[in-house]
Amino acid sequence: MSGLVLEEVLAVLSRTPRVLDVQLRGLPEPWLLANEGEGTWNPRNVLGHLIDGEDHDWIPRARIILGSSNERPFEPFHRFDHLARQVALPDLLDTFAEKRAANLDTLRSWRLGPRELARTGEHPEFGLVTLDQLLATWVTHDLDHLDQVARVMAKRYDEAVGPWKAFLSILKPR
Amino acid sequence: MSGLVLEEVLAVLSRTPRVLDVQLRGLPEPWLLANEGEGTWNPRNVLGHLIDGEDHDWIPRARIILGSSNERPFEPFHRFDHLARQVALPDLLDTFAEKRAANLDTLRSWRLGPRELARTGEHPEFGLVTLDQLLATWVTHDLDHLDQVARVMAKRYDEAVGPWKAFLSILKPR
Repeated sequence: MSGLVLEEVLAVLSRTPRVLDVQLRGLPEPWLLANEGEGTWNPRNVLGHLIDGEDHDWIPRARIILGSSNERPFEPFHRFDHLARQVALPDLLDTFAEKRAANLDTLRSWRLGPRELARTGEHPEFGLVTLDQLLATWVTHDLDHLDQVARVMAKRYDEAVGPWKAFLSILKPR
Repeated sequence: MSGLVLEEVLAVLSRTPRVLDVQLRGLPEPWLLANEGEGTWNPRNVLGHLIDGEDHDWIPRARIILGSSNERPFEPFHRFDHLARQVALPDLLDTFAEKRAANLDTLRSWRLGPRELARTGEHPEFGLVTLDQLLATWVTHDLDHLDQVARVMAKRYDEAVGPWKAFLSILKPR
């Protein structure tokens, strides 16, 4: 048991769709197409990826953990499905918000306690993981992609900032 | 002239207060106190710093650039004023939103064209900078701190994510 507080998990997960909505809806197109070079994602791609997570990963994996009496392996994370889709940004934002809300309703309905949070599933690469690790990862994964959206947008002004670049850690190569 | 598009600058700058509002208002306290260790900032500190920027830096520096016939040096950036203040988060969010809105009204009222954007001021550390570099830096500075808020929050779950840490670039040391 990690001491994960479910209310704190829900507080972040429930905010992410609105954060991205406020940040991206109506933004001029060049911001939405900004990326960090070939093979990297723009903010639209990030949204598509988050939607894939709602469909295939977080709640489905939690169901595997909660539903089986024996350990059962997760399916691999669907990381690139979204790149095949061409959907307008407002629709992506709406879809993400709806799917996330429905998934959090499911999560709340389980009324998870320490016993359930300590249950395990089998990750395809690193073996046994607990439900609370999965939920903490869901939160951190959201934050990782919020970070990514800010970073790819900032990259557009990599040259425009001139000598200030030295003070802007977001422009440092990672 | 950098080709900076003022509408694109305004599109980002005008959204930042609401992004932070949606992300932080009502969040459980432990998220608001999260930082990356001693001497680092939590989300409240970031907000205080952004407010200092509205008061002392972006528009005041733009005024120096636009107002003088000769180059005049900027005052140094007020980076740590906010650490002395104890203000509740909702008040910080409101204050930032109000000051930012007023500053963007000022910026719009100047109806800046390429000539004005190419004007210069003197940065205390790296010498001549243009108004468009200042504005691009304002945008990038916002994004840098949105990135920081996500990062310091993620840090709370550095251990809680267990083996998933390997997949979460936001948890990588920088």
